Amino acid sequence: MSKKIITVTTDFGTKDVYVGVMKGVILSINPDVTIVDITHEIEAGNIKEASFLLKDAYSYFPEGTIHIAVVDPGVGGKRRAIAIKSKGYFFVGPDNGLFWPIIENDKDAVVVHLKNKKYFLPEISSTFHGRDIFAPVAAYISKGVDIRDMGDVIDDPVRIEIKKPEFLEGKIIGHAIREDNFGNIITNISKEDIIKHFNSLEDIEIIVGDKRIPKISRTYSDVGKGELLVLIGSSGLLEISANMKKASEIVGKNINELRIEVRRKN
Amino acid sequence: MSKKIITVTTDFGTKDVYVGVMKGVILSINPDVTIVDITHEIEAGNIKEASFLLKDAYSYFPEGTIHIAVVDPGVGGKRRAIAIKSKGYFFVGPDNGLFWPIIENDKDAVVVHLKNKKYFLPEISSTFHGRDIFAPVAAYISKGVDIRDMGDVIDDPVRIEIKKPEFLEGKIIGHAIREDNFGNIITNISKEDIIKHFNSLEDIEIIVGDKRIPKISRTYSDVGKGELLVLIGSSGLLEISANMKKASEIVGKNINELRIEVRRKN
Amino acid sequence: MSKKIITVTTDFGTKDVYVGVMKGVILSINPDVTIVDITHEIEAGNIKEASFLLKDAYSYFPEGTIHIAVVDPGVGGKRRAIAIKSKGYFFVGPDNGLFWPIIENDKDAVVVHLKNKKYFLPEISSTFHGRDIFAPVAAYISKGVDIRDMGDVIDDPVRIEIKKPEFLEGKIIGHAIREDNFGNIITNISKEDIIKHFNSLEDIEIIVGDKRIPKISRTYSDVGKGELLVLIGSSGLLEISANMKKASEIVGKNINELRIEVRRKN
Repeated sequence: MSKKIITVTTDFGTKDVYVGVMKGVILSINPDVTIVDITHEIEAGNIKEASFLLKDAYSYFPEGTIHIAVVDPGVGGKRRAIAIKSKGYFFVGPDNGLFWPIIENDKDAVVVHLKNKKYFLPEISSTFHGRDIFAPVAAYISKGVDIRDMGDVIDDPVRIEIKKPEFLEGKIIGHAIREDNFGNIITNISKEDIIKHFNSLEDIEIIVGDKRIPKISRTYSDVGKGELLVLIGSSGLLEISANMKKASEIVGKNINELRIEVRRKN
Repeated sequence: MSKKIITVTTDFGTKDVYVGVMKGVILSINPDVTIVDITHEIEAGNIKEASFLLKDAYSYFPEGTIHIAVVDPGVGGKRRAIAIKSKGYFFVGPDNGLFWPIIENDKDAVVVHLKNKKYFLPEISSTFHGRDIFAPVAAYISKGVDIRDMGDVIDDPVRIEIKKPEFLEGKIIGHAIREDNFGNIITNISKEDIIKHFNSLEDIEIIVGDKRIPKISRTYSDVGKGELLVLIGSSGLLEISANMKKASEIVGKNINELRIEVRRKN
Repeated sequence: MSKKIITVTTDFGTKDVYVGVMKGVILSINPDVTIVDITHEIEAGNIKEASFLLKDAYSYFPEGTIHIAVVDPGVGGKRRAIAIKSKGYFFVGPDNGLFWPIIENDKDAVVVHLKNKKYFLPEISSTFHGRDIFAPVAAYISKGVDIRDMGDVIDDPVRIEIKKPEFLEGKIIGHAIREDNFGNIITNISKEDIIKHFNSLEDIEIIVGDKRIPKISRTYSDVGKGELLVLIGSSGLLEISANMKKASEIVGKNINELRIEVRRKN
């Protein structure tokens, strides 16, 4: 059996010991697993951001990888703890919609409400299930335990709504999802959306807030230094970027209210 | 023999190559070790913070784990370099009190003043013993070298004083230790302290600065959004938190001067 | 064969999933590799900073280690992707000068322009070659693929100019390279430079901006708390530091314009 991988995605930050402690718990159960951080800088409590990022990242890992994600404002309350098997991957975390975008189109996804205390730490705090439930469950999955032995299969995992773009006559109206570390603004309009709607990536222009961008570029250096451009980003989504500059600084900071219109050129 | 684990805790931050270089040194001596970061965001030179966090985290790792901790304002001066065996774990770092809270109650702890240059890098700088002494020593411990062969056993490791709460008639007076990434304020009053003093976690109220909190909650959602609460945190210590908000923003920022009083309800 | 190590150095930051995704790609090709982060906090697009840090760090890893470095403002444009073998190490990244300081004195360095798509991901984006080219290439190198099979050997890798200090009668004039996390200011004057020019580290004084420092100290505690000093740092370069304080706060922030003069004492 090839070496198992567990990834960890949280809103814990890195100044505390919380992530390190989760790794200690995992390695105490399975010392031969490889643990990879995806990110610990999800905005505190931002389930949508976590779900977007995890969906973007999970499938680059080998099949069989176990992805823990803990953005868990409801910890210790009524929300369920779940483990999921979907598309060859495992997911472990709170049942708050975080994993919904990954499983919404997978009829074969198995979702288990975690109940079997045999796979938890002996003592369960009411504020740190990452340590007490999710880390040990992931470690036991990495050792081959069937998630069906860990609790009850459920068919009503919590859903979150992901805002889709609007498709109108001759245009698509979308919005910004997030700004990355380089100031690139990632939108909810995909390459496929554009091709389906316009039959092509050519002869279209993009309106970003009050700025008009005449075409979809291929890469940053297609425009002059400091100039705004639009391209298909590495996740297959339309991105607003700038050459050697943060697009967010040009467009203005409140990207949550940024309207993006893709339309046929006249 | 199961795979050995070395953890690393420092105040180095992550923008420099210092932590990476330490890992390179470790892996050059023992390529089969698993290295885990606990945190590198200890406040520069804050030995107390490091000792609190390491004490909180170390025992979640498998027995035999080697914990390196480098918060070392006295590097290159007279302070000794030490390795410790205590409670089944190893610790490597400067003799400045960082490990004292872990070993103060362990009569069987073995503390070795590191002197045997065979286990150091060939050249010792006067500013980076993390690389030149602690990393290689930890790597050699992971290969099975007895710490007693690395120098002289000493019985006078440097101590630090950890402020304990005051126990008075009908009340406990404590103080804040630190603020975590979520704005939770961790205090030096433990669950055990409260139970021992009041025989219960019930019928007590907590005064935090000038705010009165009527009881110990179980989890964040026990109060309304944005409201302050007090609970027993995941380390077993009384914590001041808020539901979906940073407690530190409600209480006011200077947590070093924050007085916490736990008292019997009238 | 001992376990292979791949290091990763980028300007990606840690809030996005980019680094995690690169690790997923690597582990999908070679699940048995050890991956180590050097830093992901290179200033965006700062090739010189990346080249300085990587040169400082790479040789602390075991021979055979594969170092990926991605600071790549020209991604998707005309710049080549390269793999290098030099001094027993491998390097993978963009051909923009990042690796030049490491290979400039190595006549035996082999530099390959990466062209063989067999070792890339099936689809190559124009903005994320870290994921699509550099990560898989590094993973295949870790599995033993010869870099010469990955493209064409070239003899004209892009160079960058590293400003050397000036050697004048009785003095050396240098400048600051960077400020580390502790506020130490690292200069481009090496211990060897000083010894060669003055035959000694004694009887010299250092002018840092408008401040005169009377000698080279051995370590921080050689001066009073909060006082400025100069020492030979752990990289063998002259560093401006302060005891328990950030030197950069004493000297003034704009270290790019800081002139450092080492001169014989009168």
